[in-house]
Amino acid sequence: MGKCLIIGCGGVAGVAIHKCCQNSEVFEEICIASRTKSKCDALKEKLQPTTRTKIHTAQVDADHVEELIELINKFKPDVVLNLALPYQDLTIMDACLATKTHYVDTANYEPLDTAKFEYKWQWDYRERFEKAGITALLGSGFDPGVTGVFSAYAMKHEFDEIHTIDILDANAGDHGYPFATNFNPEINIREVSANGSYWENGKWIETKPMEIKRVYNFPEIGEKEMYLLHHEELESLGLNIKGIQRIRFFMTFGQSYLTHLKCLENVGMTSIEPIEFEGKQIVPLQFLKAVLPDPATLGPRTKGKTNIGCIFRGIKDGKEKNYYLYNVCDHQECYREVGSQAISYTTGVPAMIGASMLMTGTWKGPGVFNIEEFDPDPFMDALNKWGLPWQESHNPELVD
Amino acid sequence: MGKCLIIGCGGVAGVAIHKCCQNSEVFEEICIASRTKSKCDALKEKLQPTTRTKIHTAQVDADHVEELIELINKFKPDVVLNLALPYQDLTIMDACLATKTHYVDTANYEPLDTAKFEYKWQWDYRERFEKAGITALLGSGFDPGVTGVFSAYAMKHEFDEIHTIDILDANAGDHGYPFATNFNPEINIREVSANGSYWENGKWIETKPMEIKRVYNFPEIGEKEMYLLHHEELESLGLNIKGIQRIRFFMTFGQSYLTHLKCLENVGMTSIEPIEFEGKQIVPLQFLKAVLPDPATLGPRTKGKTNIGCIFRGIKDGKEKNYYLYNVCDHQECYREVGSQAISYTTGVPAMIGASMLMTGTWKGPGVFNIEEFDPDPFMDALNKWGLPWQESHNPELVD
Repeated sequence: MGKCLIIGCGGVAGVAIHKCCQNSEVFEEICIASRTKSKCDALKEKLQPTTRTKIHTAQVDADHVEELIELINKFKPDVVLNLALPYQDLTIMDACLATKTHYVDTANYEPLDTAKFEYKWQWDYRERFEKAGITALLGSGFDPGVTGVFSAYAMKHEFDEIHTIDILDANAGDHGYPFATNFNPEINIREVSANGSYWENGKWIETKPMEIKRVYNFPEIGEKEMYLLHHEELESLGLNIKGIQRIRFFMTFGQSYLTHLKCLENVGMTSIEPIEFEGKQIVPLQFLKAVLPDPATLGPRTKGKTNIGCIFRGIKDGKEKNYYLYNVCDHQECYREVGSQAISYTTGVPAMIGASMLMTGTWKGPGVFNIEEFDPDPFMDALNKWGLPWQESHNPELVD
Repeated sequence: MGKCLIIGCGGVAGVAIHKCCQNSEVFEEICIASRTKSKCDALKEKLQPTTRTKIHTAQVDADHVEELIELINKFKPDVVLNLALPYQDLTIMDACLATKTHYVDTANYEPLDTAKFEYKWQWDYRERFEKAGITALLGSGFDPGVTGVFSAYAMKHEFDEIHTIDILDANAGDHGYPFATNFNPEINIREVSANGSYWENGKWIETKPMEIKRVYNFPEIGEKEMYLLHHEELESLGLNIKGIQRIRFFMTFGQSYLTHLKCLENVGMTSIEPIEFEGKQIVPLQFLKAVLPDPATLGPRTKGKTNIGCIFRGIKDGKEKNYYLYNVCDHQECYREVGSQAISYTTGVPAMIGASMLMTGTWKGPGVFNIEEFDPDPFMDALNKWGLPWQESHNPELVD
């Protein structure tokens, strides 16, 4: 069918690349490009014998538009799948504009110097993408991503009006360590120490950090404590699901995890201010990362499942109705299949599917789009086909 | 009256030296000796204008018997007060034997290469001290120290038989930090992660770390959670209080303190195994110490009180009887008086008193003695006089 340039070679990219190689009819050729070409070459060496997809590799610094343009002009991909860092979204979009190439990412732009993520930066590209006749698909991971597809599906098939959406993200994985983080602990700490917010009647309502806590009995996982956080898809769903009154996002955190994080913060071990130690400037957080288990070692030992989904409340045929769409993903099955556990898997699979929607022309149209703006049905089918089967309940437990 | 050589210049030594300078009739001349002479000189400079005690200073490495002998022969003290490190007890005792000088310390010998403290090492010096005609007074701090004096006092005045002793050590000081340690966190961690033990019917009963927990309503402090630990005075009191059936030691720890310590241990920050960090070998515990507040900064900000004492149960005139002797000490009052908070104060004052008992000849006799072997009355009077007044209750709350 075509060619896809994948930028990035971390955990999520690794999953997406495995999945592209399983879907060789669509992904006839891929080029894996990252700052460290040897990582791309290692992945190619592992996967090429297993797939009909032809794998290329390249070195690229995604901070530099000119380098990106040169690479795109050389490889001539149909789609650029951006799995680099969130603060590199705009340089990659610029390169796509310059070369008239479709664009897909999984997380919205975040300037390096602030912790504030919002869609404004990328939505500002709408007119330019329309004029160039190319498509940008924003946020094609799980949350954002599948949560938007679930919302569009519910709106299309199950409701006349959706009044509220609660997005529930549960990770019941157990790596057997008293404490470890799946990724940069700084991001974990920012997440739990930031104010929360939710969208209600056209306005943001801000909460104190971890102020709103609920217990929910998740299918296949059981009761978990979860906390209301701000999350980026609330912004686009608030606009794209017409008539919506409230959207909230909840994520589970275990008490032990929160206690460890709080203690480490209390003693100063999560600080990014360097301290003087034996004549050397050392950032405590960097030292903590060196002491903690390497996130790469968690994959093989993580057991248990994730459950991510959306609970919708609204009206169908004049009657009140509740509806729950969710996916359950098993850490160990993911690891056996692609060498990554469910956290990377649930983001990497939808990234491949999003790219395939543009590669095949299933989704098209010039401009910059959030995922819920397209027809959800082919994406929903693809989720079942490519490893993230969804389940539904017409009588779910609700969240207060 | 005489001359005292004080070895060590840390927190406890600082208090003892302040107290010697308040007691110039007994301590006519003192010599402060430590590895770092400048610390001794700084203390002399501060205290000399306030006291009639003549202060000398000297440099000495307490690991080397020959250096110690040379210093003793030069200064010719009546008593050597050892406030150096526990693993230097034996070299200092050797120097006292060689020079026929009385010896006092506050904590029993602990070999550098094991964490096992016991009196065996020092009791083995009995015959040599007897032959030399000099006195060694072991454990003249608070616990051990005042707890032994309290036990001897109870035996002398309040009981015909003591059946049980519970030693209760409560620190309700609050330094305002979420977590900090008064001294080396490694020692704190060893304390709470070691097995506990108590003495019953002539035998040691071992417990799991922190296995036995009680809540006690301390006079002037209120309800605190306390845990059974091993403590060195159990060994000597078990032998010296005739007919004793059980002795236990409890220390208070706040839940937050324990949680922080546990989390830091869980993530590996209390490990003494070096890790590779940016090309350098760094011991996590050393780095943690650098991140935590400097213990020296805790003094001025610590509020609240300590309460340390003994609850005795036994028989007087054929009737069962309970009796509680304790001291309450205020962190801020200590700091105002001597520039150290109550942890150092409660050890440093009895150290000075113990030395004064030998200087004045109030306690005498050749050999090696634990503090409860001497007449407690003059020591009890001195506690009231020198800043650690004791209180008693004939109807105390008991510990299960």
